[in-house]
Amino acid sequence: MVVLERAVRFDEVDAAGIVFFGTIVAYVHEAMEHFFDQLEGGYARLIMERRVGVPAVKLEAEFSAPLRYGDRMRIETSVARVGKRSAELSYRILRERDGVSCATLRHTVVVTDLDALASCDMPPDVRAALEAHLAG
Amino acid sequence: MVVLERAVRFDEVDAAGIVFFGTIVAYVHEAMEHFFDQLEGGYARLIMERRVGVPAVKLEAEFSAPLRYGDRMRIETSVARVGKRSAELSYRILRERDGVSCATLRHTVVVTDLDALASCDMPPDVRAALEAHLAG
Amino acid sequence: MVVLERAVRFDEVDAAGIVFFGTIVAYVHEAMEHFFDQLEGGYARLIMERRVGVPAVKLEAEFSAPLRYGDRMRIETSVARVGKRSAELSYRILRERDGVSCATLRHTVVVTDLDALASCDMPPDVRAALEAHLAG
Amino acid sequence: MVVLERAVRFDEVDAAGIVFFGTIVAYVHEAMEHFFDQLEGGYARLIMERRVGVPAVKLEAEFSAPLRYGDRMRIETSVARVGKRSAELSYRILRERDGVSCATLRHTVVVTDLDALASCDMPPDVRAALEAHLAG
Repeated sequence: MVVLERAVRFDEVDAAGIVFFGTIVAYVHEAMEHFFDQLEGGYARLIMERRVGVPAVKLEAEFSAPLRYGDRMRIETSVARVGKRSAELSYRILRERDGVSCATLRHTVVVTDLDALASCDMPPDVRAALEAHLAG
Repeated sequence: MVVLERAVRFDEVDAAGIVFFGTIVAYVHEAMEHFFDQLEGGYARLIMERRVGVPAVKLEAEFSAPLRYGDRMRIETSVARVGKRSAELSYRILRERDGVSCATLRHTVVVTDLDALASCDMPPDVRAALEAHLAG
Repeated sequence: MVVLERAVRFDEVDAAGIVFFGTIVAYVHEAMEHFFDQLEGGYARLIMERRVGVPAVKLEAEFSAPLRYGDRMRIETSVARVGKRSAELSYRILRERDGVSCATLRHTVVVTDLDALASCDMPPDVRAALEAHLAG
Repeated sequence: MVVLERAVRFDEVDAAGIVFFGTIVAYVHEAMEHFFDQLEGGYARLIMERRVGVPAVKLEAEFSAPLRYGDRMRIETSVARVGKRSAELSYRILRERDGVSCATLRHTVVVTDLDALASCDMPPDVRAALEAHLAG
């Protein structure tokens, strides 16, 4: 499990005063970028130099409690499955002030050659990073 | 079915040059706001004056083709189920230049009293708007 | 003058319930994209195929009244100056419900070869589009 | 001077592959939130409980070099002027890999009662935080 902690920012709440689900999904992507800091050069080098990406093909999410401005969250990222060209990541977002679970998400990604825009084999370092955090 | 058409904006693509899934989810919310233009005063009045919201409790999404800057999309919103205090909306996002389906999403919302932050009965006009677009 | 009308979206207000200045600046960029719909293929083709962009080098803005969720705005774009490789655009954002001016912005852009990341001469169609809307 | 360091995120670049000026302005707001961590409860408590905000009335910015995905930045926030009900903050954004200055911004804020939406006297702790970082 890899953990990212961050605060809700001023401009991240919606007109109902809470963080709407589009931003929750963006948080999860931020957690995935953080997860791939394990790679040399991180997710940025993977995308920009190595031209390999992991676009989402599937997302399942449940939202159980709101996040507001002033809240801090803890995003726990783990890996549910690693395949030949795909993987499934899972995330839990906890509100730090009371430990309440705000959201759980599952996210299937396909390893993609960004120039060809076609799936490709998973690079060994990406596989190693994922397998290091396979949930029990 | 209610249709929203719009272009991908300049700042809506990611470092891989495509629209990432957080923004796709934000598009779907925009389509839902558009759907509720059927109400008098629209979604804005529902939230701001009537203090009733429909936060997401569940989301399921599949992504099948990328959207890039310069693409226009067509978002089709329909209603899969209407309950006492909840509903399920479904969305299809099509790329206009070739008609390819880029994403399908299902989104369960719970009608919520935004002051009490508790579920509440669905107002009759919200129910009527949803039932008018129940998918066969 | 080119006019863009649009509503404030649900996720575009901040924790104080108004549209913060970062989003106002994003609106102005959206108005500029709309301005360049005059070009064949629009701003998207300029960026993506012709590889010419107009990044900002200077911005001056005054904010005089808030925009809230439910407000609609009218963004008036005109051109204050056209140079050899640069131009100055000016924008006024009006709140539709009462006609109040919410913001005025001036924005200097430099025509840029996006591959070389260096300034370049202004393409004739870009110049014509700008000159067609030179203010007074 | 208060310093915030952070990376450009995956979804923060635009279709030209750089961070557009709306996002730069959002970064500056993030730096201001960080600046006000000096207050008890930070900017969040100021807004949400004390109902005092500091909306922008004026912004001047110059942009001199691009930020890309993979870049880290250092945002230096200082205070140029403190008045009775207003203040002027100044920011410099440096690219960490080479120390190049990417943007400088000046930002005038007015202390505002968020319920009355009218200017109000500056609370003593806000004044103290600003005066502690007045640039020479």
